[in-house]
Amino acid sequence: MKIIIVNGPNLNMLGKREPDKYGKKSLNYIEKILLDKAKKFKVDLIFFQSNHEGEIIDFIQKEGAKADGMLINPGAYTHTSIAIRDAILSVNIPFVEVHITNIYKREKFRRRSYFKDISIGQIVGFGIYGYVLAFYGIINFLKKNGKV
Amino acid sequence: MKIIIVNGPNLNMLGKREPDKYGKKSLNYIEKILLDKAKKFKVDLIFFQSNHEGEIIDFIQKEGAKADGMLINPGAYTHTSIAIRDAILSVNIPFVEVHITNIYKREKFRRRSYFKDISIGQIVGFGIYGYVLAFYGIINFLKKNGKV
Amino acid sequence: MKIIIVNGPNLNMLGKREPDKYGKKSLNYIEKILLDKAKKFKVDLIFFQSNHEGEIIDFIQKEGAKADGMLINPGAYTHTSIAIRDAILSVNIPFVEVHITNIYKREKFRRRSYFKDISIGQIVGFGIYGYVLAFYGIINFLKKNGKV
Amino acid sequence: MKIIIVNGPNLNMLGKREPDKYGKKSLNYIEKILLDKAKKFKVDLIFFQSNHEGEIIDFIQKEGAKADGMLINPGAYTHTSIAIRDAILSVNIPFVEVHITNIYKREKFRRRSYFKDISIGQIVGFGIYGYVLAFYGIINFLKKNGKV
Amino acid sequence: MKIIIVNGPNLNMLGKREPDKYGKKSLNYIEKILLDKAKKFKVDLIFFQSNHEGEIIDFIQKEGAKADGMLINPGAYTHTSIAIRDAILSVNIPFVEVHITNIYKREKFRRRSYFKDISIGQIVGFGIYGYVLAFYGIINFLKKNGKV
Amino acid sequence: MKIIIVNGPNLNMLGKREPDKYGKKSLNYIEKILLDKAKKFKVDLIFFQSNHEGEIIDFIQKEGAKADGMLINPGAYTHTSIAIRDAILSVNIPFVEVHITNIYKREKFRRRSYFKDISIGQIVGFGIYGYVLAFYGIINFLKKNGKV
Amino acid sequence: MKIIIVNGPNLNMLGKREPDKYGKKSLNYIEKILLDKAKKFKVDLIFFQSNHEGEIIDFIQKEGAKADGMLINPGAYTHTSIAIRDAILSVNIPFVEVHITNIYKREKFRRRSYFKDISIGQIVGFGIYGYVLAFYGIINFLKKNGKV
Amino acid sequence: MKIIIVNGPNLNMLGKREPDKYGKKSLNYIEKILLDKAKKFKVDLIFFQSNHEGEIIDFIQKEGAKADGMLINPGAYTHTSIAIRDAILSVNIPFVEVHITNIYKREKFRRRSYFKDISIGQIVGFGIYGYVLAFYGIINFLKKNGKV
Amino acid sequence: MKIIIVNGPNLNMLGKREPDKYGKKSLNYIEKILLDKAKKFKVDLIFFQSNHEGEIIDFIQKEGAKADGMLINPGAYTHTSIAIRDAILSVNIPFVEVHITNIYKREKFRRRSYFKDISIGQIVGFGIYGYVLAFYGIINFLKKNGKV
Amino acid sequence: MKIIIVNGPNLNMLGKREPDKYGKKSLNYIEKILLDKAKKFKVDLIFFQSNHEGEIIDFIQKEGAKADGMLINPGAYTHTSIAIRDAILSVNIPFVEVHITNIYKREKFRRRSYFKDISIGQIVGFGIYGYVLAFYGIINFLKKNGKV
Amino acid sequence: MKIIIVNGPNLNMLGKREPDKYGKKSLNYIEKILLDKAKKFKVDLIFFQSNHEGEIIDFIQKEGAKADGMLINPGAYTHTSIAIRDAILSVNIPFVEVHITNIYKREKFRRRSYFKDISIGQIVGFGIYGYVLAFYGIINFLKKNGKV
Amino acid sequence: MKIIIVNGPNLNMLGKREPDKYGKKSLNYIEKILLDKAKKFKVDLIFFQSNHEGEIIDFIQKEGAKADGMLINPGAYTHTSIAIRDAILSVNIPFVEVHITNIYKREKFRRRSYFKDISIGQIVGFGIYGYVLAFYGIINFLKKNGKV
Repeated sequence: MKIIIVNGPNLNMLGKREPDKYGKKSLNYIEKILLDKAKKFKVDLIFFQSNHEGEIIDFIQKEGAKADGMLINPGAYTHTSIAIRDAILSVNIPFVEVHITNIYKREKFRRRSYFKDISIGQIVGFGIYGYVLAFYGIINFLKKNGKV
Repeated sequence: MKIIIVNGPNLNMLGKREPDKYGKKSLNYIEKILLDKAKKFKVDLIFFQSNHEGEIIDFIQKEGAKADGMLINPGAYTHTSIAIRDAILSVNIPFVEVHITNIYKREKFRRRSYFKDISIGQIVGFGIYGYVLAFYGIINFLKKNGKV
Repeated sequence: MKIIIVNGPNLNMLGKREPDKYGKKSLNYIEKILLDKAKKFKVDLIFFQSNHEGEIIDFIQKEGAKADGMLINPGAYTHTSIAIRDAILSVNIPFVEVHITNIYKREKFRRRSYFKDISIGQIVGFGIYGYVLAFYGIINFLKKNGKV
Repeated sequence: MKIIIVNGPNLNMLGKREPDKYGKKSLNYIEKILLDKAKKFKVDLIFFQSNHEGEIIDFIQKEGAKADGMLINPGAYTHTSIAIRDAILSVNIPFVEVHITNIYKREKFRRRSYFKDISIGQIVGFGIYGYVLAFYGIINFLKKNGKV
Repeated sequence: MKIIIVNGPNLNMLGKREPDKYGKKSLNYIEKILLDKAKKFKVDLIFFQSNHEGEIIDFIQKEGAKADGMLINPGAYTHTSIAIRDAILSVNIPFVEVHITNIYKREKFRRRSYFKDISIGQIVGFGIYGYVLAFYGIINFLKKNGKV
Repeated sequence: MKIIIVNGPNLNMLGKREPDKYGKKSLNYIEKILLDKAKKFKVDLIFFQSNHEGEIIDFIQKEGAKADGMLINPGAYTHTSIAIRDAILSVNIPFVEVHITNIYKREKFRRRSYFKDISIGQIVGFGIYGYVLAFYGIINFLKKNGKV
Repeated sequence: MKIIIVNGPNLNMLGKREPDKYGKKSLNYIEKILLDKAKKFKVDLIFFQSNHEGEIIDFIQKEGAKADGMLINPGAYTHTSIAIRDAILSVNIPFVEVHITNIYKREKFRRRSYFKDISIGQIVGFGIYGYVLAFYGIINFLKKNGKV
Repeated sequence: MKIIIVNGPNLNMLGKREPDKYGKKSLNYIEKILLDKAKKFKVDLIFFQSNHEGEIIDFIQKEGAKADGMLINPGAYTHTSIAIRDAILSVNIPFVEVHITNIYKREKFRRRSYFKDISIGQIVGFGIYGYVLAFYGIINFLKKNGKV
Repeated sequence: MKIIIVNGPNLNMLGKREPDKYGKKSLNYIEKILLDKAKKFKVDLIFFQSNHEGEIIDFIQKEGAKADGMLINPGAYTHTSIAIRDAILSVNIPFVEVHITNIYKREKFRRRSYFKDISIGQIVGFGIYGYVLAFYGIINFLKKNGKV
Repeated sequence: MKIIIVNGPNLNMLGKREPDKYGKKSLNYIEKILLDKAKKFKVDLIFFQSNHEGEIIDFIQKEGAKADGMLINPGAYTHTSIAIRDAILSVNIPFVEVHITNIYKREKFRRRSYFKDISIGQIVGFGIYGYVLAFYGIINFLKKNGKV
Repeated sequence: MKIIIVNGPNLNMLGKREPDKYGKKSLNYIEKILLDKAKKFKVDLIFFQSNHEGEIIDFIQKEGAKADGMLINPGAYTHTSIAIRDAILSVNIPFVEVHITNIYKREKFRRRSYFKDISIGQIVGFGIYGYVLAFYGIINFLKKNGKV
Repeated sequence: MKIIIVNGPNLNMLGKREPDKYGKKSLNYIEKILLDKAKKFKVDLIFFQSNHEGEIIDFIQKEGAKADGMLINPGAYTHTSIAIRDAILSVNIPFVEVHITNIYKREKFRRRSYFKDISIGQIVGFGIYGYVLAFYGIINFLKKNGKV
C-alpha cells in the first residue's frame, strides 16, 4: 500500500515560521514520526513539499494515480487553488485534509477550503499531531473499504 | 484524569437513523470502543447524550468543571446553540469537536459551527472512527500541556 | 393507520395568544375537529404539544417511527430548529407543515423554515382550518402511495 | 358565488410536461374534479389558462372584479410578475396561491413569490390535489367572512 | 404590583463564569439587591433562571400573564430564541431587556436580539448594576402608564 | 413635433384601482389634460396603454422611431422589463419616466427601475399631476436641444 | 403663502462646478426664475444655501416651522445626512426633493437618499429646469390640500 | 431533421438597433446564411421571432415538441423569463443559447441567464456569426447523440 | 467631579418635534431633573446641544479632557459620525450612550451606532427618563472605578 | 497568420480525467483536429499546456506578442488568475475563451471568469468540439477585422 | 506654485490623541517640516485644519481654485463626506490623500474612502512621515505635468 | 543594510504593457533610479521579478530572512496570493506595498489586497515614482526603529 503526503507553500518553513502559531518542530520531524507509524502498517510513504502550485499539480497527477491514498496540507492553497482540487479529482484518490492550526480562529479568508467537500474528512487544530491523526484516519478509511 | 463525552440531539438514534449517512453502529458501540482505549491511558470517561439543549448545558456546568477535557458532537446544536457554547466557556474546559459525517458535503446551514473557534480542533468526516481520533487528539493535547 | 400531530412552542396558548392574529379557538378545539375527521377515515391520531425542543425530538423519535404520517406546526422552532428537522429525518416519516398565520406577511425571520424542503408540502395562512387541509393533504398522500 | 381559477404559463402542458415532477394528469382533469366539488357548494367556476402575462392581467381585471374569490397557480410568473400582483390588488379579490410541486425543493429562484404576502394562504407540494385543498381553503375563508 | 425577573442560560454561573467579563458577584447577590429596591416600591418580585428554553417559555406563559412587568436577561437565547419572543408576545407583558456586558464589543453573532424591537428598552453594558437600572426603568414605565 | 405617451399594465384601472393610492381620476382624464397642454405647444400626442409587455415593445418599435420624445409610466414593468428598456434603446428616443405614487415609500422591489439610468429624468410622487410635470420636462428638454 | 428653497453643499458653485454635468447657470440665475414664477402665484420665497449640515438644520428648524412648503436640493447631504432628515420631520413640512443631474447615471453611492421616502416626490435629471418643475409640483400639492 | 430558431424581443430590429453594438445586418440576413448551411446538412429550419414572452412560449410548446433541436437567442428575456425556461423543459428539447454581443462586457443585470444551466452550451460575443457557430454546435451535438 | 451632557442635532426641538415619538417635555426640562440628581451626588454638570457636528467635536475636545464622564445622545449623528467617535477617543473619556426612543423599532438605518462599541453601555427606549438612568449608570461606573 | 492555443492546468489529463465529464479524447486528439482545420486556412498553430500559472504567463508574454490570435481554455485558472488576465492584456491579443463542460451546471465557484469580459467571446459546453467552434470564431473575427 | 494642506477633524489633537496610534508629534511639528521642504522647491503652502465639514468645504472652494495642488488628510470625513469630495471636484484640483495610520489594520468602516478614486494616489501607514511622502508625490506629479 | 525589491507577474512587461496605464519606462529604469538613491543611504538592494507565485515565495523565504526590509509590488498576486502573504509572515520582515496605478480607479477585484493589513504602509497611484516614495518610506521606518 502507498500513501503520498503532500505539503503546500511555506510548510518547508515549519519550526522557523511563526513558531508560536505553528510550533517548533520541522517538517522533517513530522516525516520521521509518520515513517515510524507507517512501518507498523507496512505502508509506503512518499513525501512532497513545494511552494509552486504547478509542481503540486504535476506531482499529484504523476504519483496520485499510483497511490492508494493521500494526506494533504495545502497550506495557503487551501483557500485559493481550484487547480489542485481538479488535479486530485483527475486522479480520483481518497485523501484527508490536515491543518496544523485551528484555521477557524484566524483570518476570515482562511475559512474557505476548496478541498473540504471532496476529502474524506478534515483534521484541524491539533498542531503537528494532526498528521498522525490524519494518517490513522486514512488507514482506517482504506481498511473499511477493503484496501488494506 | 477524567474526560466527558457529550452527544447532542438524535445521536441516540445512531445505527437506526439514515444508516447510509451515519453508519450502522449504535452510540453504545462507540462508547465501548472508547472505554477500551481509555483503559490503556487510565482515563475515566463519562458519557452523556440528550436531545435537550438545556440538559446538555446543565451537564456541562456540573460535570465539565470537574473534568480535564471533553469530546463533543453537538449534533444539530452545532449550528444553532450559542447557549452550549457559553456553557463550555463558563467551565473553561479544553475540548475537541467531532462530526461523524463530512458536514461540508451537506446542506449549507451545516457549515456554521458555534464551537469551532473555541475548540482545540475538529475531526470531521471519519464516521464513528472520528471519536477515536478525537480521543487521541484530546489525550495528546493534555499530554503536551502537562496534564497527563 | 396512525398519524401524529405535533405542535410547537406557544401553541398551547391558542385562543389566548394574540387572538387577532391566531384566532379565538383553542388547540383543544382543533383536536376535536381533527378527531372527528379522523373517525371517518379510520385513522388514529396522537396529539402532542410542547414548548421544549428536546421533548418534541423525544416524541418524534419515539412515536414517529411507529406512525404513518405526521402533521406538524413547529411554531417558532420552524425558523430555528435543525435538531427537530434531524429527528424527523431519523424516523423517515412523511409529514405536512402547517402554519396558522400567513408567515409571509410577518417579520422577515419567519420566512426561513427548516422543514419546508423535506416536507410533502406546506399549508400556510388558513387559520386553524389549515389543520383540516393538512389532514386531507396527508391522507391524500398516503392514499396515492398505497398506504391506506 | 363565483370563483375564478387562473393558471399561468406551461400549465396547459400538465400531464405532458416533466411528468415525474408534475404528474400525469392534465389540467382538464383538474378542472373536472373542481367542477364536481363546486357543484356541492353551489359555486360557479370560471377557468382560465394563458402563457401570456398580459392576458392573465386582462382576465383578472375583467373577471376578477365580478368574482368572490380566486385560485391561482401563477406558474413561472409567481417569481417574476409584479404586474399580475398589481392586477389582483386592483380588483381587490381574496385568493389562494397553489403550487403543484414543493417549490422549496427546487431551484433557488423559485422561492420568491410576488403573491404570497397578499394571498390568504399558500398550498404547496400536494400535486394536483393541491387545487382541491385550495378550493376548500377559499370556501372556508368566504364562509368565515360571511360571503357564503 | 408584581414583576418577574427572568434569567437565561448560564446566568446561574455568574461569579464563577469568566469573572473578568461578567464580574465576581453571583445571581443571588443581584436578587438580594433587587429585593431591597423592590421593598421601597412595594413591589413583589419573582425570580426565575433556567438553562432550558422550554422552561423559560413555560414560566413566562404561567407567571407572565399574572405579572405587571418583566426584567429579562435572555443570555444566549437573546440571539437565537424566537420561541421565547413569542411566549412574551402571547402574555403581552411590558418588559426591559438587560445585558451585563456590552454585547456590542463582543462576537458579531451577539449583536442580533430577538427581543429589542418588542421591549420597552434595553440596558446594556453596566455589569450587574444594569439590573438595578432596568428595575428603575420598568418602574418608571409602569408609573407613566398609570399602573403604579 | 410628436410625443408618445406610454402607460404600462393596470394603468387602465386608474380611478378604480386602489384609489387611496392612485387617486380617483381615470387615465382618460389625464389624457385630456395633456391634450390641452399639448395644443399650446403645437405638439401631437399619441397615447398608448397595454397590459402586455410585448405590445408595448411593438408600439415603441413602431411609433418611437417616428416620435421626438416619449413620456412613459411603465407601471410594474418598471421593475422587471429589460425588454422594454431594449426597445427604447433600439429607437433611441429621449424620454421621461413618471410614477404616480412615491415608489420609495412602497415595497422594496418597487425601488428597482430598468429605465431610470437611460431616461432624461424621473418625476415621482406627484399623483397624476406628475404627467403634466413630465410633459413640461420633455418639452423643455427638446427646446434646450433645439428640437422645438 | 411662504415656500423655502434650500440648497446644500457646493450648489453655490453652480455655473463654475463641473459645467458639463451641472450646466453653466448660477444658483442666482435659478433664484431669479423662481421669483418670477412665484410672483404669479403670490408666493413668498426664502432662499438658503449652505455647505454646513448644521446651518441647514438650524435654518429648517427656524424657517421651516413658519413656511407652507419647501424645495430642497440637499446636494451630497442627500446621501449622508440623517440629521437633516430629522430636522425636516421635526417641523413637519411638505417638501419636494430636486436633483439637477440624473443621479442614477452616476456613482452608486448617489443612489441612496435619506429624503425620498419622506418627501412628496422627487424631480431628477432635468438640469436647473428641475427647480421650476419642483416649484409647480409643490404649488399643485398645496392646492390639492387646500393650502392655496 | 428539424431545428427551430427562436429570437426574442427586439431582435427584429437587428441592423437598425444600436448598430455599433449589434452590427448592421438584419435578422433576415442571418436566416439566409443559416438556410444555406442547413441545406448541406439536410436540415429543416423554422424561424420565429417575437417580442411577446407568451408567443415564444406558445411557439416552443407547439413546435419544440416536434423538433430535434433549437437555437435560441432569448434577447432580454434571457435575464427575466423563467416561463420560457419552463416551456423548453416541458418539451425537453436540446438547445444552444446564443448572444450576439459579449454580454459580460455590459450591464450587470445581463449576466444572469435562466437558460445557461439547461442548455447544451452557450456561444457569446461573436456577432451574428455566433448563429453559425451555434448551428454547428447543435449539429455536432445531435450527431454525437446519434440523432443525425 | 464633572460630567458633560452632550445632545446632538434636533434635540433642541424636544417637546415640539414629533411629540408622539419623543414626548412633550423639552430639553430644558431634562436638564433640570439631571441638575437635581447631580446635586445629591455633588457632581457638576455641563450641558451642550448643537446641530453642528463640528461644534460637538470642538466641545468634546475642549471640555471632555477636563471631565470625568459624559452622557451623550448623539441624535442622528449616532448613525453617521465617525468624527465624533474619534473626538471621544481622543480625550479618552468614559461615557454612556442614551436614546429617547427604542431605535430598534424604527428605520433600519437607525440600528447602526458608531458609539456603542466604545461606550460603557447604552440606555435605549425609556423616553427622557433614559437620561436619569444614564446618569445613574455613569455615576455607578465612576464609583466602581474609584473616581467618586 | 499565427494562432496560439493555450490550455491550463489538468487539461493534460484529458481522456483520463473524469471521462464522463470531460470525454475520452486526449488533448493530443484535439490538437490533431485543429491542425487539420488550420491547414485549410493556412494558419500556423502553436500549442501550449501547463499546470503552472507562471509558465502560462511566460508563454503568453513571449508568444502572444508575435501571434494574431489565441484560443485559451484556462482550466481552473479561469476562476482565480488575475495574473494571466494581465498577461493577455499586456500583449493585447484578441482571443476566444473555451470550456469543454457547461461550467454553469457545476459548482458555483466555476461561474466566475477573469477572462470573459476581455475576450471576443466564449464557447461553453460543447465538449472538445468547442475548440473547433472557437477556432472558427477567431478566424471569423480576424477576417472581419481584415487580418486574414 | 501654491499647495494647500488640509487636515480634517481631530487632527488638531495630534500628539495628544491616542499617541500609541498617532505618535507624539503635533500638527504644528508636521507643518514646520513641510515648510522646510517647501522652501527648497519654492512652493507656497497654506495650512488648514477644521473639525467642521462645512468649513473644509468653504476653504476648498475658496483656496482650492487658486492652488496648484493639495495634500489632504480628511480624518474621519474620509469615510463619510461626499460633500468634501464634491467640493474638490468642483475646483478640479489634483491632490494626494494621506493617512497617518495604516487604516487597513483598523475598524472595517475605515476602509471606505470617498477620495481614493479621485485622488492622484494615497500614502497610508507611514505616520507623520506620510505627509513628507505625500508632498514629494504631489511635487513629482506637478513636474510630470509641466506645472513646475 | 539590505533591502529586497520584489516585483510580481507582468511587471517585466513595464514600458511595453498598456503604456497609457503603466507608463513607458521599463523595470530596468526603475532599478537604476533606486540604486542611485540607495547609494546615498549606503543600502544594498536586491531586485527580483517573477511571473511564478512559487518562485516569489522561494525568493522571499531565502532572501527575506537575511534582509532588513522589502519593497513589494505583487502585481496581480496582490489580490489572490495568500501564499506570498504567508511567506512574508514566515520571515517576519517589514515591508512597503507599492502600486504603479491607482488601483481604486480600476476593476473592483483589484481593491482586495492580501498585503495591506500586514505591511507598514501602501503607496498607490504615483506611477513608477511610487517606488522612490516607497524606498523613502522603508528607510524612514528603519530609522525610526533604530535599524539604520
